[in-house]
Amino acid sequence: MRYFEDIDVGETETVGDYEVTAAEIKEFASRYDPQPFHLDEESAADSVFGELVASGWHVGSICMRLNVDRLDDEAVLAGVGLDDLRWERPVTPGDTLRLRTEVTGKRPSESRDDRGYVTTRMEGRNQDDEVVISFDATALFARRPE
Amino acid sequence: MRYFEDIDVGETETVGDYEVTAAEIKEFASRYDPQPFHLDEESAADSVFGELVASGWHVGSICMRLNVDRLDDEAVLAGVGLDDLRWERPVTPGDTLRLRTEVTGKRPSESRDDRGYVTTRMEGRNQDDEVVISFDATALFARRPE
Repeated sequence: MRYFEDIDVGETETVGDYEVTAAEIKEFASRYDPQPFHLDEESAADSVFGELVASGWHVGSICMRLNVDRLDDEAVLAGVGLDDLRWERPVTPGDTLRLRTEVTGKRPSESRDDRGYVTTRMEGRNQDDEVVISFDATALFARRPE
Repeated sequence: MRYFEDIDVGETETVGDYEVTAAEIKEFASRYDPQPFHLDEESAADSVFGELVASGWHVGSICMRLNVDRLDDEAVLAGVGLDDLRWERPVTPGDTLRLRTEVTGKRPSESRDDRGYVTTRMEGRNQDDEVVISFDATALFARRPE
């Protein structure tokens, strides 16, 4: 297991690819974000985007999937929160997403000596290496048992 | 249409309910967040949660759905970002979620005179009125045409 102690600030990794299809954009949106520019091409053509775009929550969820797939026995106990999330560019059908991660901070829990917080800067990038989403994710890790 | 000018800081609304099932928790997780404590009851029993819990991205997406359903001809152009998102309590099968929204800020765009930013404090609450997720969401709204 990779415990809190084994995670180094400055560690980076880039993983992917995840191809985003029109069918998946519409399926996610119909369930969780049924706004016209996520649901059908015709309505989307009249939006500021001019074409079908993925829900921002969908783009974040895809990054989560890429993040979980890269984990290799990390001792993650739970997600804590997100800060400074920005949807920087639209994601459209046919885009292929990668996730770049960089550990930017860690601190032991003040109330529990068996766990600590790790903050990771996440950047979702498209096939042109443009950032489409960025955020800081904080998770609770187990500390290495004595 | 409710344009930027029609939105008042301090407006609040509470909408729901959304019942969260074990089947939906597992379905979302298998696609976007395949960690053991989101996927099956047995693995979840060994986690810090002690039972199956919904992915944090799933909980946020459910809040998005509740938010979109409450919109009534709001002139939303696009999502901009999220700040200070915290998963405050686990969401488990059978929980029923409501969303409380409060507009906390607005400002015209500096670069485009046809749009402006609206920030809304979002709180997802369960059937016991406990906050399970909270965040500030900023969206771009169209201004009222002259």
